[in-house]
Amino acid sequence: MTTIAKGLEGVLFTESKLTFINGSEGILTHLGIPIQEWAENSTFEELSLALLDGKLPTAAELAAFDAHLKANRMIPEKLAEEIASFPRNVHPMQALRTAVSYLGLFDPQAEDTGEDARRAISIRMIAQFATIIAAIARAREGQPVIAPRSDLTHAGNFLYMLTGKEPTTEQARLFDIALVLHADHGMNASTFTAIATSSTLSDVYSCIVSAIGALKGPLHGGANEAVMDMLDEVGTPDQAEAYITKKLDNKEKIMGVGHRVYKYFDPRSRVLRDYAEHVASKEGKSTYYQILETIEKTVVDRIGSKGIYPNVDFYSGTVYSDLGIKKEYFTPIFALARISGWCASVIEYSRDNRLLRPDAQYTGATDQHYVQLQDRQ
Amino acid sequence: MTTIAKGLEGVLFTESKLTFINGSEGILTHLGIPIQEWAENSTFEELSLALLDGKLPTAAELAAFDAHLKANRMIPEKLAEEIASFPRNVHPMQALRTAVSYLGLFDPQAEDTGEDARRAISIRMIAQFATIIAAIARAREGQPVIAPRSDLTHAGNFLYMLTGKEPTTEQARLFDIALVLHADHGMNASTFTAIATSSTLSDVYSCIVSAIGALKGPLHGGANEAVMDMLDEVGTPDQAEAYITKKLDNKEKIMGVGHRVYKYFDPRSRVLRDYAEHVASKEGKSTYYQILETIEKTVVDRIGSKGIYPNVDFYSGTVYSDLGIKKEYFTPIFALARISGWCASVIEYSRDNRLLRPDAQYTGATDQHYVQLQDRQ
Repeated sequence: MTTIAKGLEGVLFTESKLTFINGSEGILTHLGIPIQEWAENSTFEELSLALLDGKLPTAAELAAFDAHLKANRMIPEKLAEEIASFPRNVHPMQALRTAVSYLGLFDPQAEDTGEDARRAISIRMIAQFATIIAAIARAREGQPVIAPRSDLTHAGNFLYMLTGKEPTTEQARLFDIALVLHADHGMNASTFTAIATSSTLSDVYSCIVSAIGALKGPLHGGANEAVMDMLDEVGTPDQAEAYITKKLDNKEKIMGVGHRVYKYFDPRSRVLRDYAEHVASKEGKSTYYQILETIEKTVVDRIGSKGIYPNVDFYSGTVYSDLGIKKEYFTPIFALARISGWCASVIEYSRDNRLLRPDAQYTGATDQHYVQLQDRQ
Repeated sequence: MTTIAKGLEGVLFTESKLTFINGSEGILTHLGIPIQEWAENSTFEELSLALLDGKLPTAAELAAFDAHLKANRMIPEKLAEEIASFPRNVHPMQALRTAVSYLGLFDPQAEDTGEDARRAISIRMIAQFATIIAAIARAREGQPVIAPRSDLTHAGNFLYMLTGKEPTTEQARLFDIALVLHADHGMNASTFTAIATSSTLSDVYSCIVSAIGALKGPLHGGANEAVMDMLDEVGTPDQAEAYITKKLDNKEKIMGVGHRVYKYFDPRSRVLRDYAEHVASKEGKSTYYQILETIEKTVVDRIGSKGIYPNVDFYSGTVYSDLGIKKEYFTPIFALARISGWCASVIEYSRDNRLLRPDAQYTGATDQHYVQLQDRQ
């Protein structure tokens, strides 16, 4: 009997030097460096460049990259008009998918699939994602689009373009850490979809558009939005335990809990939890935070021994919410971070490309013949 | 040592009842019925419905489906304007990717991922792909867009919208056969990419946009255009043998020859070859046909014993060219056919969905630590 690798779980299809995950011990590293050290010391800009180049940059390289990103924050006027013309109620990820596809139409380098071109397009896209996503959010809220500023960090400038207010240093840094934590995560479904597209030697825009489409799904990027839906459903902290106990009793799925890879605490969730705790200790515990605290305790007590723990989506939503961001923009913000991992992974895979073409086990009818229409039952 | 399944070749990741391929014997069936029988007896409309439903339709079901397709041929006015505004020189597959993503913004059913909604969206998309692709081609050529007619078949109406002339019955039927031959082909890279996107429970538009991006690559849908580039490079029939002999001597890749799955004649190429021969016998051998004849003979003589034979891309380009279609529209026409396989495969996979998340073998550095910027070499 032939084995079917459902979900391709455990199937190795390529080599990679970018990200290592040990799910049973809760370890995540980029270039061999633990995610906690990246979160503590680095920035989204630096991690993005490190992923693209496969090494920690020198100070000069990082400064040049940062200047390059800043110089590319503006988006074409036609794209801004396009975004403004989208139907108001449309899903922000549908808007992002369409906007990025549209952006490709105006890039004269789009059809160049050499590594230099792929890298140049990637850097522009990393910069422009912030402007595109902020523009989509502003347009959906019926607010005027805000032009990027070049005196702010990538994270700070995004919050500024999104809210119209310059964030505090602490807010910008907290958001920067969230971007660092989400920048790459091995062969997750969206990165894998980008690689599948790239494997036909298609262009970078097609790869990223595919990844956006995959990230959009509730089993992937949509999860942190779903966590917030759950918190809203719970309502108040005193109802949290009963809500979760009932879900556990009924063996229902709890959003933000459990992970295909992690069978222990997701190290990213620990970093975010510490920050959420820090904010709570300074400003008092928000309702969301109190509900999450109770859910975490209940879940770990009841099913932690089965390897089911809160994952990164469990805390990221609360952090974003504390920053004043509406939940419908959580998945686009995931894309804002993951664009670096997508681009770096596509470039790495292209160096030793192999068309992705798995097989399905055929379980249908055999030895059939076409029956003329008039002879069918 | 762990094995890496490069390109996922030979890896089974799901079950399917739609398509069976035996590459070493050159067999392709849909629902157990050989592709030759579909090509001879069926239509694109019927095969599309059969793939969606997993059975040959009754006469009443087919009539209802056909009426449904015809009623959905029109595209939203805003989409037509959008396509007309695309830059003229853009790759038609970039235009198609963007247009289909844009179409999703105006579908109030887009976010419904239940099977009924997925099926309804699929049928509309199968109908509208023809209108979108014809509109893209007309706009690129600076010609006015032609509205669909409901008195023609899917294939006939497409040729009419593309060229502005009603095709002969024979032309419409030949094109219909080409669509039948390309409608589905198992877990090819674009279908697989559509499934990868779908596996996060994303929406149908996202799945199809991903598939378009994957099909665009020269290792997949771009191949028949590349065959025509080669024929143009050869120039005249008398130079074909020397051209190919030189390529074979230098072990260079010959476009349209060899296939990941088929190690014998691709059965689809035989059907198209017979039609091309039929046309040639009636109207005389075109230059393209004569060049292809020589290339096929040279290739089969020299490397056929190694399992390298002409594939479907080898003949489809000549057929399209005989129908007066420019080569830059060959890949969108591939999409026009494959949309049925994409939709049917996504719907089938959704019934027993499992998030696609393979792994990479980590080959990078271990036990590294973050080094402060000023301390780096």
